[in-house]
Amino acid sequence: MQPDEFRRIGHEVIDWIADYRERVGDLPVRSQVEPGWVRSQLAPLPERGEGFGGLLDDLDRVVVPGTTHWQHPGFYAYFPSNASLPSVLGDLISAGLGVQGMLWSTSPAATEVEQHLMDELVGAMGLPPSFVGGGVIQDTASSAALVAMLAALHRSSGKWRQSGVDGTETVYVSSQTHSSIERAARMAGLGEEAVRSIAVDDVLGMDVTALARQIQSDVDSGRRPVLVCATIGTTGTGAVDPVAEIAEVCARHGIWLHVDAAWAGPAALCPEFRGVFAGVERADSFCANAHKWMLTAFDLSLFWTAHPDVLVDALTILPEYLRNSATESGAVVDYRDWQIPLGRRFRSLKLWSVLRWYGLEGVRAHLRGHVDLASRLAEWVAADENWELVVPRSLSLVTIAHRDGDEATRRAMDAVNAAGTAFLTHTTVNGRFAVRVAIGAEATREEHVRAMWEALRSNR
Amino acid sequence: MQPDEFRRIGHEVIDWIADYRERVGDLPVRSQVEPGWVRSQLAPLPERGEGFGGLLDDLDRVVVPGTTHWQHPGFYAYFPSNASLPSVLGDLISAGLGVQGMLWSTSPAATEVEQHLMDELVGAMGLPPSFVGGGVIQDTASSAALVAMLAALHRSSGKWRQSGVDGTETVYVSSQTHSSIERAARMAGLGEEAVRSIAVDDVLGMDVTALARQIQSDVDSGRRPVLVCATIGTTGTGAVDPVAEIAEVCARHGIWLHVDAAWAGPAALCPEFRGVFAGVERADSFCANAHKWMLTAFDLSLFWTAHPDVLVDALTILPEYLRNSATESGAVVDYRDWQIPLGRRFRSLKLWSVLRWYGLEGVRAHLRGHVDLASRLAEWVAADENWELVVPRSLSLVTIAHRDGDEATRRAMDAVNAAGTAFLTHTTVNGRFAVRVAIGAEATREEHVRAMWEALRSNR
Repeated sequence: MQPDEFRRIGHEVIDWIADYRERVGDLPVRSQVEPGWVRSQLAPLPERGEGFGGLLDDLDRVVVPGTTHWQHPGFYAYFPSNASLPSVLGDLISAGLGVQGMLWSTSPAATEVEQHLMDELVGAMGLPPSFVGGGVIQDTASSAALVAMLAALHRSSGKWRQSGVDGTETVYVSSQTHSSIERAARMAGLGEEAVRSIAVDDVLGMDVTALARQIQSDVDSGRRPVLVCATIGTTGTGAVDPVAEIAEVCARHGIWLHVDAAWAGPAALCPEFRGVFAGVERADSFCANAHKWMLTAFDLSLFWTAHPDVLVDALTILPEYLRNSATESGAVVDYRDWQIPLGRRFRSLKLWSVLRWYGLEGVRAHLRGHVDLASRLAEWVAADENWELVVPRSLSLVTIAHRDGDEATRRAMDAVNAAGTAFLTHTTVNGRFAVRVAIGAEATREEHVRAMWEALRSNR
Repeated sequence: MQPDEFRRIGHEVIDWIADYRERVGDLPVRSQVEPGWVRSQLAPLPERGEGFGGLLDDLDRVVVPGTTHWQHPGFYAYFPSNASLPSVLGDLISAGLGVQGMLWSTSPAATEVEQHLMDELVGAMGLPPSFVGGGVIQDTASSAALVAMLAALHRSSGKWRQSGVDGTETVYVSSQTHSSIERAARMAGLGEEAVRSIAVDDVLGMDVTALARQIQSDVDSGRRPVLVCATIGTTGTGAVDPVAEIAEVCARHGIWLHVDAAWAGPAALCPEFRGVFAGVERADSFCANAHKWMLTAFDLSLFWTAHPDVLVDALTILPEYLRNSATESGAVVDYRDWQIPLGRRFRSLKLWSVLRWYGLEGVRAHLRGHVDLASRLAEWVAADENWELVVPRSLSLVTIAHRDGDEATRRAMDAVNAAGTAFLTHTTVNGRFAVRVAIGAEATREEHVRAMWEALRSNR
């Protein structure tokens, strides 16, 4: 494809996306197709090249019906994953440049724009100065957790790089911690038995007394506590672990404290929401997903550590074919040493596009708008005779259930999902089935939340 | 940003990329900036949003000078990473849709287009039928290697998920294997001591006798061989390990055979190049990067395993908030269980765009063109009185050195790189410094290779 063809077809693709975003609110949020339908519609690979028209036709004919529309204003499932249009353009520029930023020297701008943004966000989010110079973009919070765990293992034992794990390492989560931490422990060779699931208090935050007791008991029996994962905004209900108290326990035992704020993290841009981030200044690492609630197209997870030297030392390896004078000068950062893969995209461009287009005020308005909608919904639920809040609202996440029990809750949720104007997912809270209303799509307005709530309460 | 603004600005961004691609050949391939220059040019995050013009200005003013141009026709470094313009558009559509395909139900099309393409490529590349239904897109070959290793660990011991590694696991590579395998062993908790680096023969292929001897010796001393990584097309020189013979050894001991064809893999689309893939039909897993030599914008690594059930069982975890009826029906594949992260982009769109735009014939012409250029270069080198081939040409990779020794070779390479019309990187072959000429940028033509060669031989 020559640049001139790209110009012409590229304009068509841009227009297709604009049209899609204009009409996405009119589509059923969840795909209605049966397993196998999409495949049944696809042609074998062509021997000869075709134009781009066939693919655009297939988007309308197959892909759109086969898609669950994450950018729909009625998307309240999981956590919404914003792909704002400025971020789409930033991502496009990244693909268009086609650079691979594994080393500083393979694209200085890819490294330095990222360093600049990560350092600037430390200030903008009120994060501790210890994170300056320790920021890097990961693909997802799962990878960020794995990277934190590997750094923690390396810090905990000088023999880890050479000899691997020794079976005494222990990792601490709560029953509400995201499954990616347990999965990271499995991938790091620790096994599930190395993961202690600490009980939670009545607002689903980690019980610090139980944590301290478990750690002491493990130490007494010859185990080696390596990492505690505290969560600010759990996936289930948005619960917040007492980070400051957990940090105190970690400090006593030299344990790496990773704070997972994958969803709630961007809220730190608003001073009035910073209360839940107390204690973060003592974290060894911290993660927040810009691709969830910060308007940035998937995938872009913000990760900071106070110990980049430990992280790099844990992950670095330098074969001859990657040697270069810039690296050897020691004057540059090579981000390949900060992540699981070797190669990397110029991901910071899509974040830069967002921060410049919206400005910090614009991003804050986005966050505040959702929190405001969630508090209205929480008021409506609290005033309703049939529904109730299962836990207090957490920022923009409202977790609710029908007073008549699980069957009524599930039936109402299923009916709303089947109608196609909203998509809700569930969790369980102390064994009780509950609907999570995660407000966070860019296009969601009060009318959408109101309509979803009316649909939910009219079913049972 | 509203769809109409996106339409207008999106057209500008498309045009910017078209202009960039039109002029990229006139830019110095390697960025000429000093460490810190890019950062010194960047403004603090704005409080108020600005238009998109400032960012486009900064692309020209800061990003382009700060970029090493991977799409330049004079890029012969590392392995070129094609970001063809149809793949850029496919990637754009993915960002524009903004779906997250962690589960089938979160976007059936993202899962099924990927399944379709991966199965179709099994046929098109002459891969074994055992890979049908076992294909998945990874971000990079490093992640693919880690995933293969985790599956191998799980298959090797029923206790791995629960208890982790036990310190007897052993992994086999050659001295030429990519560093990502040793790094994966470190990340999986095995430590570097678990990695055996097997000697190579005079064409830098793994010495199978030495491999068999080492495995037997390890077994005799109570160790547990888990994985052998064979490479088809090493990073240093494009060497090919004797996969069929290695498979024989692996079969005797029940060892997982991972074949890393990250660079050379796409060549399997051309029947005349399939000789080097002999034995792949016995591999447990296989990896080829579409983002290197298959015209697809980074990141897109093709990974197949003959044992998807083992892989899924190794990596799966199912918290309540991800439960859904499609998954529970067993009728669908949830690709979150096939990879390190949980979330995932709709990456197959960019591969689909490539395969439809170029057709299989077009992709084959791309591959053949580079191999043809490389064989001409190899002839010129062989006929030269001062330069020589250090190893035989491998597909499109030509590894050469000056007969006067390392100093002469390095001086010539540095001079060409400093001139800015070509970018070459080096390796060492049996301690000898050698220049790798990796021909593979989409825009590279005979005139470019000829000019690079003339520049190289005029220096010493």
